[in-house]
Amino acid sequence: MQGNVLVAQGGGPTAVINQSLAGVVCEARRSAGVREIYGAIHGVRGIVDEDLVNLTRETVQNLEMVALTPSAALGSTRDKPDQAYCKQIFRVLQAHEVGCFFYIGGNDSADTVRIVSEEARKASYDLRCVHIPKTIDNDLMGSDHVPGYPSAARFVVQAFMGLNLDNRSLPGVYVAVVMGRHAGFLTAASALAKTFADDGPHLVYLPERAFSVDKFLADVKAMVERYGRCVVAVSEGIHDAQGTPVTGLLADSLTDAVKSKLGIKRVRGDTFGYLQRSFFGCVSDVDRSEAREVGEKAVHYAISDKQDGSVSIQRTGCYAVDYRLTDLAAVGGKTRTMPDSFITADGNGVTDAFHAYLRPLLGADLPQPHRLRLNPVEKILKKN
Amino acid sequence: MQGNVLVAQGGGPTAVINQSLAGVVCEARRSAGVREIYGAIHGVRGIVDEDLVNLTRETVQNLEMVALTPSAALGSTRDKPDQAYCKQIFRVLQAHEVGCFFYIGGNDSADTVRIVSEEARKASYDLRCVHIPKTIDNDLMGSDHVPGYPSAARFVVQAFMGLNLDNRSLPGVYVAVVMGRHAGFLTAASALAKTFADDGPHLVYLPERAFSVDKFLADVKAMVERYGRCVVAVSEGIHDAQGTPVTGLLADSLTDAVKSKLGIKRVRGDTFGYLQRSFFGCVSDVDRSEAREVGEKAVHYAISDKQDGSVSIQRTGCYAVDYRLTDLAAVGGKTRTMPDSFITADGNGVTDAFHAYLRPLLGADLPQPHRLRLNPVEKILKKN
Repeated sequence: MQGNVLVAQGGGPTAVINQSLAGVVCEARRSAGVREIYGAIHGVRGIVDEDLVNLTRETVQNLEMVALTPSAALGSTRDKPDQAYCKQIFRVLQAHEVGCFFYIGGNDSADTVRIVSEEARKASYDLRCVHIPKTIDNDLMGSDHVPGYPSAARFVVQAFMGLNLDNRSLPGVYVAVVMGRHAGFLTAASALAKTFADDGPHLVYLPERAFSVDKFLADVKAMVERYGRCVVAVSEGIHDAQGTPVTGLLADSLTDAVKSKLGIKRVRGDTFGYLQRSFFGCVSDVDRSEAREVGEKAVHYAISDKQDGSVSIQRTGCYAVDYRLTDLAAVGGKTRTMPDSFITADGNGVTDAFHAYLRPLLGADLPQPHRLRLNPVEKILKKN
Repeated sequence: MQGNVLVAQGGGPTAVINQSLAGVVCEARRSAGVREIYGAIHGVRGIVDEDLVNLTRETVQNLEMVALTPSAALGSTRDKPDQAYCKQIFRVLQAHEVGCFFYIGGNDSADTVRIVSEEARKASYDLRCVHIPKTIDNDLMGSDHVPGYPSAARFVVQAFMGLNLDNRSLPGVYVAVVMGRHAGFLTAASALAKTFADDGPHLVYLPERAFSVDKFLADVKAMVERYGRCVVAVSEGIHDAQGTPVTGLLADSLTDAVKSKLGIKRVRGDTFGYLQRSFFGCVSDVDRSEAREVGEKAVHYAISDKQDGSVSIQRTGCYAVDYRLTDLAAVGGKTRTMPDSFITADGNGVTDAFHAYLRPLLGADLPQPHRLRLNPVEKILKKN
């Protein structure tokens, strides 16, 4: 190829989104014919505003440090470009003699890349467009999993490990709301926090199944009777059979229902919020390397193979992966949800198949809870 | 001493509370005259219920693994014993020939230890009672800081480092509510998340200063004008000059006010909730060793020195500490708040003195954010 390279980042942050950026920049620098490597500030918004920076002379040392920093280093955007917006993007790429456009983002970003690619073809302008996958929701079609998800899942696992221990030391009912409006992958990750048979989360509710408050209350009652406590993971996207979400603030609605209907006193609820996508210092090493590789592979596909598409991860062993370029139309704007084989028949938990799927993605050195082996002392005052 | 040792854990969990437990058990086992080492299940509640376990034959290996696990391994309680309850505690200790009682907890636990110690003296029963400090609130009198606080502070720092990067990549106003009803130490820790001059949190509100929604809105407006964004840390305990807390759910009240009064669109709020005290995998190595040492020292004071009291941490260098036995009455039921020297004159930030105080407590290998050195590309289409 001849010309410049442009890379941008879109959508919500992940722990490893800058690994993909570093992958693109480092690999593009090694490619013959590449003149300058530009970055767009705040994604597609920065392209149409011509708010570009030159990354060609960024030091390798700093790129490597930035790669370890979470959240889009170039800035991101929530803009979802339509046809007209994409035409503007194309005009800027053309003006700056861009020969390769890389966009790191989710399914909306893939759709943007698809439209820009079409605009270039219509104009007979030689432009390679590759979408580099990124989302904590893990909801892209055609991939075993998506960079960003493993680290967010690891955060959820470590969070529930701690919350289960908290709840075990001070028993009661605890409900935590996890991100994922349409796909339950991140909420489901909570199940991997279990070490001992009586560990929580005892119940996991996903947006892939209709939610009923009555069934929820019956489930909680049963768990409290069995374990004297109950830890619940709930997706923010749960809704009833008609698609209506739970009214009010989710964590409060559910904990209020437990208090008033079951008469349990110690009931607490939290919404994980931005921490699960932003926390600095909880990353899967598997995620880190794969995020780097999808960036590198994107450059191979665009520059060596002269192809457009979306980079996807395929699982080839337990645990090994390979990458494949997927059709942009198969990824853009589409949402993948949890397959039935990952959800228990009851609809309030996950299967062994999901455990087997997620465990290798969480990476090495996951913390491990340990218990005292309790050896009771004979009672003296209260002996019967 | 002759007889048995009893150890219990009270109050909320910390990342290192089981280090103190391991410190007591390992050190007590080495002490001549100690027969059996008992643990009470769920704190003082387990004592009055005679729900005790024998820790004498717990393996060192498992004790060390439990020490690395957050939240009270023996279980905890929210019970705050009065005189009558303490009499019951004393009767159980007497029946089980306990010669040393160790209670790991906050200022309420210190007060329990004080009353039990008095009951023993009144009954002329030879009992050593030592309180071992633990709280994420850092609010015990007579200590430079309290075990559990450094790790919770580290969580808050890593959280705000990530939230600041999130907010920088997708600008807007973000408000996070941090634990600490009366003392602002944990909320103040957020300030140590700053690396670059324009990093957040840009505003920090503590319960030690009267909170005014109008002043808050003016502060946010000024920061948005200066930085195009604003990250705010708020203590859950903030209240106006009359002591009245902000009405409604704190995070929602404040973000609603910013939206409606300042007309800013992208405004988000979170309440950190239980994660900040429970998350498994965010610990300060300094906290870990000190929590171990306060457990060990408690055994020295009780068994070698035959003294009652509360173990306190004294800073002796930058950074070094020593331990001192403090009078139980000086700690029990009392609350330490942030000294004026740690709070800026404006009341919406912390001073360099606070940075110097907290930095060594956070421990080694704190993650460090890095930025691209942005080198603008000349505009072509939009050049003026």
